[in-house]
Amino acid sequence: MKDVAQEAGVALGTVSKVFNNLPVGESYRLRVEEAARRLGYQVNSYARGLKTNKTYTAALILPDITPPFFASLAQYVCQALAARNYKLILALTASDPDAEQRCIQMVQQNKADGIIGLTYNPELEVDPRLPYVSIDRKFNPGTPCVSSDNFGGGQLAAEKLLELGCKRLLFLRIGSQVPGESDKRGDGFESCCRQKQVEYAVLRKDDREGVESFRAFLEEHMENGRLAFDGIFCATDALACRIVRMLAEMGVRVPEDVQLIGFDGTRHFAFGDFHCSTIIQPVNRLAETCVDLLLQEDRSNLPSLVCLPVSYASGGTTKE
Amino acid sequence: MKDVAQEAGVALGTVSKVFNNLPVGESYRLRVEEAARRLGYQVNSYARGLKTNKTYTAALILPDITPPFFASLAQYVCQALAARNYKLILALTASDPDAEQRCIQMVQQNKADGIIGLTYNPELEVDPRLPYVSIDRKFNPGTPCVSSDNFGGGQLAAEKLLELGCKRLLFLRIGSQVPGESDKRGDGFESCCRQKQVEYAVLRKDDREGVESFRAFLEEHMENGRLAFDGIFCATDALACRIVRMLAEMGVRVPEDVQLIGFDGTRHFAFGDFHCSTIIQPVNRLAETCVDLLLQEDRSNLPSLVCLPVSYASGGTTKE
Repeated sequence: MKDVAQEAGVALGTVSKVFNNLPVGESYRLRVEEAARRLGYQVNSYARGLKTNKTYTAALILPDITPPFFASLAQYVCQALAARNYKLILALTASDPDAEQRCIQMVQQNKADGIIGLTYNPELEVDPRLPYVSIDRKFNPGTPCVSSDNFGGGQLAAEKLLELGCKRLLFLRIGSQVPGESDKRGDGFESCCRQKQVEYAVLRKDDREGVESFRAFLEEHMENGRLAFDGIFCATDALACRIVRMLAEMGVRVPEDVQLIGFDGTRHFAFGDFHCSTIIQPVNRLAETCVDLLLQEDRSNLPSLVCLPVSYASGGTTKE
Repeated sequence: MKDVAQEAGVALGTVSKVFNNLPVGESYRLRVEEAARRLGYQVNSYARGLKTNKTYTAALILPDITPPFFASLAQYVCQALAARNYKLILALTASDPDAEQRCIQMVQQNKADGIIGLTYNPELEVDPRLPYVSIDRKFNPGTPCVSSDNFGGGQLAAEKLLELGCKRLLFLRIGSQVPGESDKRGDGFESCCRQKQVEYAVLRKDDREGVESFRAFLEEHMENGRLAFDGIFCATDALACRIVRMLAEMGVRVPEDVQLIGFDGTRHFAFGDFHCSTIIQPVNRLAETCVDLLLQEDRSNLPSLVCLPVSYASGGTTKE
């Protein structure tokens, strides 16, 4: 730094300010940066991390990055961090509780400044001094959780199906047994049906049962070549796609005989079209909110749950 | 470390060996680890990084993580690194050459142990002391490049179309103007056609022209409701999907009138089915090879290009 100060003809303190991103006159900043370039000076952020106790690194823990919702979440978290000069460490756990705990330990050992985690381990132990933001799962009031407005999304799906003329509604869900915010999709759906005094049925399955386990239920509810339901809300777009195909195999027409709404807002990789009518999660805002909460300096007054607004989009499996 | 040594009843050197992953008797390792756990001792990998000059962190630079090929590449690189106790820093550049250069600088400042990059900046400057593995693009003989056997894949696509009865072949490609290994898909295709003395045409477009720019060409080559080609090889699955839809709009039946093969091996997010008949990139092996080359201790004798074998899979846009 002394060499840079001499080369730039400025005080050592000025160089230090520029290197540490503290306010300094623009002309000074330019002179220091120019001198640093001439001398081939490279800031050692790593060593600086030890001194300032900041690494400008945040970790994102996901089960898997190949499902489109997770891929776009990672994309936006990476961009939101980059805009704040933070780097992203990506850790994938395949939803394994032990792997999740190991990830957190690894991240703590590497002194990341914080963690954004979408995890399935209800007993996850996180150092309370480490900033942590949870996606879709509440741990305790001190750990902020960010999710879409799942309850509101479930209500919206039921309302939309009724608006489109459906009379007998069905909710289908397959997923993890660990309780999470996304369970509220069904709660919101049921709440709306009860309030409007509409006939409805609900079928919740565990991941291990597999999507094929819905087939028997659907077949049992066929009467004279027609399904006993004319509106189906599926907890995810992936499930909705599978059910659409199952119905086609059973000779049920979508959306003529049965209308379907999924949840996520997944788009076809080549066209950008929706795969099905859907409740769209605001992935960009989810990511921004996670990063904002993670990097917030004052951690004494964080919300325990932030729900972001969802919206409906038609994607061919409803009449509108 | 002294406390741990005392708690475990072993010498200080033994504790040091265990913490630094050096060989030590299994019973000693267990005693030290148990004692460290009891005392709540946490290895500070970050500080250790400064001393050993290793951070056990590698960076992956990608343009974008949402296309399925990139998402699964990131997935496998993350897994391959984790199996070697390395963490992944993910940096996304939107194919912007300046962003790529900034990423590399950022990674150098954070002292990652190496970089795996899929980049579009032909003048990218990488510190030659920093292990770097390039995906799909050769920089110089000293920087190993890993890619699928693109040339062989292009040959395979042409052979397959001929085997399935096609007589007049067409190659379509849209992509970056920066030369790269994936350009060889077309080279392999042309080489096979010439060798077998088959009629063929080729149309290469720049990303900025957009996929719609193929429509005029296809329409010009319609004769009495039939396309002048009966076999099309598209440089990516995404392009193949778009062309299939364009042909459907023009009343051309796939695969009855025209057979199509794409390249990548993209699968539908909900079913795992291929989107089109395709040449599959061995993503898992690409990732493993990148990580192996990146972490290889002896860097004096690295290959300049490693091509991994591709395979054909039928996905509904060919007769088999």
